[in-house]
Amino acid sequence: MYNRTYNFSAGPANLPEAVLEELRDEMMNYRGCGMSVLEMSHRSKMFQEIYDEAVADLRKLMNIPENYKVLFIQGGATLQFSMIPMNLMKNGVADYIVTGAWSKKAFAEAKKFGDVQCIASSADKNFSYIPDCSDLPIRDNADYVYICENETIHGTTFQQLPNTKGKILVSDQSSMFLSKPCNVSDYGVIYGGVQKNIGPAGMAIVIIREDLIRDDIDPKTPVYLRYDTHADAGSMYNTPNCWAIYVCGKVFKYLLKLGGLEAINAYNESKAKILYDFLDQSKLFNGTVEKEFRSLMNVPFVTGSKELDAEVVAYTKAAGFDNLKGHKSVGGLRASIYNAMPTEGVVALVECLKEFEAKQN
Amino acid sequence: MYNRTYNFSAGPANLPEAVLEELRDEMMNYRGCGMSVLEMSHRSKMFQEIYDEAVADLRKLMNIPENYKVLFIQGGATLQFSMIPMNLMKNGVADYIVTGAWSKKAFAEAKKFGDVQCIASSADKNFSYIPDCSDLPIRDNADYVYICENETIHGTTFQQLPNTKGKILVSDQSSMFLSKPCNVSDYGVIYGGVQKNIGPAGMAIVIIREDLIRDDIDPKTPVYLRYDTHADAGSMYNTPNCWAIYVCGKVFKYLLKLGGLEAINAYNESKAKILYDFLDQSKLFNGTVEKEFRSLMNVPFVTGSKELDAEVVAYTKAAGFDNLKGHKSVGGLRASIYNAMPTEGVVALVECLKEFEAKQN
Repeated sequence: MYNRTYNFSAGPANLPEAVLEELRDEMMNYRGCGMSVLEMSHRSKMFQEIYDEAVADLRKLMNIPENYKVLFIQGGATLQFSMIPMNLMKNGVADYIVTGAWSKKAFAEAKKFGDVQCIASSADKNFSYIPDCSDLPIRDNADYVYICENETIHGTTFQQLPNTKGKILVSDQSSMFLSKPCNVSDYGVIYGGVQKNIGPAGMAIVIIREDLIRDDIDPKTPVYLRYDTHADAGSMYNTPNCWAIYVCGKVFKYLLKLGGLEAINAYNESKAKILYDFLDQSKLFNGTVEKEFRSLMNVPFVTGSKELDAEVVAYTKAAGFDNLKGHKSVGGLRASIYNAMPTEGVVALVECLKEFEAKQN
Repeated sequence: MYNRTYNFSAGPANLPEAVLEELRDEMMNYRGCGMSVLEMSHRSKMFQEIYDEAVADLRKLMNIPENYKVLFIQGGATLQFSMIPMNLMKNGVADYIVTGAWSKKAFAEAKKFGDVQCIASSADKNFSYIPDCSDLPIRDNADYVYICENETIHGTTFQQLPNTKGKILVSDQSSMFLSKPCNVSDYGVIYGGVQKNIGPAGMAIVIIREDLIRDDIDPKTPVYLRYDTHADAGSMYNTPNCWAIYVCGKVFKYLLKLGGLEAINAYNESKAKILYDFLDQSKLFNGTVEKEFRSLMNVPFVTGSKELDAEVVAYTKAAGFDNLKGHKSVGGLRASIYNAMPTEGVVALVECLKEFEAKQN
């Protein structure tokens, strides 16, 4: 109807059509209030309702315990790379598990703020697996253990959480946020940029255990970078990204209507299976990740030839599939198949890849 | 047609209807590309075009010299309160002019990062005027002089820039950005949260002279808080607020079409005159700002009685005028009449206030 393409972007990425339709329909006058949400004072009753509903729906979706706060903070995951060590370090010590580009960036940033070690890494095989995290050399005085639970570029995911030996677990869930059920109380902090699986770019959601929000951190910390600034003001110390909160709220409602995170997980598993099954039987294409660590969200694959990879990208692009070029550090192709990617999109992509493969013979 | 209200919010605030219509019409499929801008990879050619056009149009509107960079940074003016001292202080010394709530906040934040002094203030009269800034005790080693050029809450504006005695001038233009012509080369840094006069909340625009973007600042500065991070990556070190860039770009085009900043200034002067002329002849209402320092954007006024003020707010609200309640620190009422407020809105408000006044006799 709208002649929309299948968009396999790693983020920002596709949103449910039903959500976009609501955004369109409410653009000129939100529910009779006489203005667009884009124009609404963040201090107004109308916007507070949008905000409160979004938080309540997210709490319902993830079954977030009462002793966790939900914060909306600008600056993406990148700002969290700094905020986490600046706010969570009491001893100035943290242990990082490095499984790809994003945990590597977070690790590099955290080093500015304390004694930070990499206690496990999969760099030896270009981040194509998750290392054994059952008995890591976590330091006794570590303030937290850090993971990126789904590496967007490398397409790996933790199937089970690391044994943190009682230390607080901090997880970057950007590219898997709300893709499957999550036991929030296993974590001290869960955060994610919303632009991959939930909403528009320009905001991170931080779910943080209340006792980790401290007021005794370095007084020279920039006010925007203090979790207590945001927590004390209900994420409205200053004007938040109101539009992103509004769009995310709609996506939360959409997911609840679909049946919540169990339902979306089943859907995601079935979608990913179609693509992985194809890759596993293909004589041309190979997934780049060890099977047991494959992400349901980001599926990198290669032909083994750079020239042929480029041909596939051009071929799929011409057929109406967008953003399939892999990240330069992995090469080849990458299909990001987030919550909002319909099964039809994956089926159609597989058909297209089959066609391409057939033509090679 | 859309039954829209007249929205006098201080920010987020109203946007041109023509811009909202375009946002609505492009929501499901942006110009035939098969996706919404909300879903678009920031690394895509399509988005790069949106970005490049926005920057080019802003440069045209403000006649920005080539040796200034335009940066889009999340975190609002609040993050700039920290970034400015963290990036601009070489000597660790800065002089602030405090003329209202926002410069006061910026001043308080800057104190964390160096030897910061208030060299002029209008606090003695509840920030109802701009102090004489022709011969201030600016320190010889001051890295910059800071002003908030239009104070949103108190409704004052600088009619002429302070004599900085050769020091760099940093100006927060949030609530007057693009409301009138601006000689960019008078400043080292101009910045503003876009949610008042240009676009949706969640982004600041920073216009900074290139030589002020340093790579030799404290290496422990969070990566997102370094101007060189954003400058070196064309504001795409990480995913920017793509939607805000897109909306602002549309507003820039809208302003160019109207005739640029000279034209919008004439429009703003004529609108503000209608309201100020009414206040000046009214026996009930009084503007709270000394005449020569009145803002064209934010017009605070009072009746002299808190009870009556509250009645006026309720009366105007019932008549379809929204967000007229003044900030608690000033009381009374405040009409924010930014670029996108039509003359009809101001005329209608004045009629409504006249009506109210007539009923008091």
